[in-house]
Amino acid sequence: MTKLPKEVTDARKPGYDINPLILGRWSPRAMTGEALSEQELMPLFEAARWAPSSYNNQPWRFVYARRDTPAWKKLFALMGEFNQGWTKEAGALAVVLSKRTFEHNGKPSRTHAFDTGSAWENLALEASSRGLVAHGMEGFDYDRARKDLGVPEDYEIMCMVAIGKRAPASKLPQELQGKEMPSDRKPLKEIVMEGTFRK
Amino acid sequence: MTKLPKEVTDARKPGYDINPLILGRWSPRAMTGEALSEQELMPLFEAARWAPSSYNNQPWRFVYARRDTPAWKKLFALMGEFNQGWTKEAGALAVVLSKRTFEHNGKPSRTHAFDTGSAWENLALEASSRGLVAHGMEGFDYDRARKDLGVPEDYEIMCMVAIGKRAPASKLPQELQGKEMPSDRKPLKEIVMEGTFRK
Repeated sequence: MTKLPKEVTDARKPGYDINPLILGRWSPRAMTGEALSEQELMPLFEAARWAPSSYNNQPWRFVYARRDTPAWKKLFALMGEFNQGWTKEAGALAVVLSKRTFEHNGKPSRTHAFDTGSAWENLALEASSRGLVAHGMEGFDYDRARKDLGVPEDYEIMCMVAIGKRAPASKLPQELQGKEMPSDRKPLKEIVMEGTFRK
Repeated sequence: MTKLPKEVTDARKPGYDINPLILGRWSPRAMTGEALSEQELMPLFEAARWAPSSYNNQPWRFVYARRDTPAWKKLFALMGEFNQGWTKEAGALAVVLSKRTFEHNGKPSRTHAFDTGSAWENLALEASSRGLVAHGMEGFDYDRARKDLGVPEDYEIMCMVAIGKRAPASKLPQELQGKEMPSDRKPLKEIVMEGTFRK
């Protein structure tokens, strides 16, 4: 098992021992500005591919752009000023889509977004285990993404992801440097209940 | 890194080397019928807890029942005959819920189900790494679950999960024994697109 870095063990105190890959994944923003090659990027989507889904429908789709390619400008332009301020150093961007219907019968899937979330987590974990940043965002123009990327109505746009090689926090705009650390979580007892829902 | 069992390497041929924890997770059905202790069950929810979410809102909630407890009957009764046929040997059941709104401002979250899916994948991966089954299902009565578990409208019911100790396929009803193997996936090129959506 990987030994976790101090930045993680300082910030996160799990109540039970869990896989360090899971505890060690977080969402840094500082990246080096280097482009990612196809060989560096594709394993992340490969990891996403093996997620579970209802009827093995695999609703997840990924539209990506690598830095310094024609597609980059199009994806970069979807984000607001705040996210552009740090994703300008990303090595790749991706828009995560989710098919609303089952392929075997065309009926609506009630779990498609949930299923696509599990694929996204695989992507994020694979990135983390390779020392890469994978930071999800909803701070972008969803309507423009649908138009500019040509996404049909049958696919829901879930989030964007900035992917890149990690850099020190000093590479970030000043106001983001203090946020460059793993976040904590609610206590387990607030999210787990025996037998009956309670707030 | 864990060496993957033959059942996985026979069925799954990844195009890129990825973390064996991710490739090795699948959804068996055969379980021993032994109850899970709190100590065995809680690490799975602990893993779920560390998933990423928009604004770190952590919309995931889990209502669980361990075998041979008063809550078990209530959760078990939610499923249809098909799923009861194999989950009767589970050690625990859980219903996964997702809060539709942000806690910091009460507004609807567009990514809550997606975020909760990432927590579910952490749960499934942690189970797999411990040699436990965690099998997600949508074959249950969602309306009855809302009523019987007292789930408020602000929480969406996502799926149920059967959790337990693995058993040989021979422990399953005859008609399910042939399905007890890791499933394959679409080719990577069908789910990943550069710059523009295409089917």
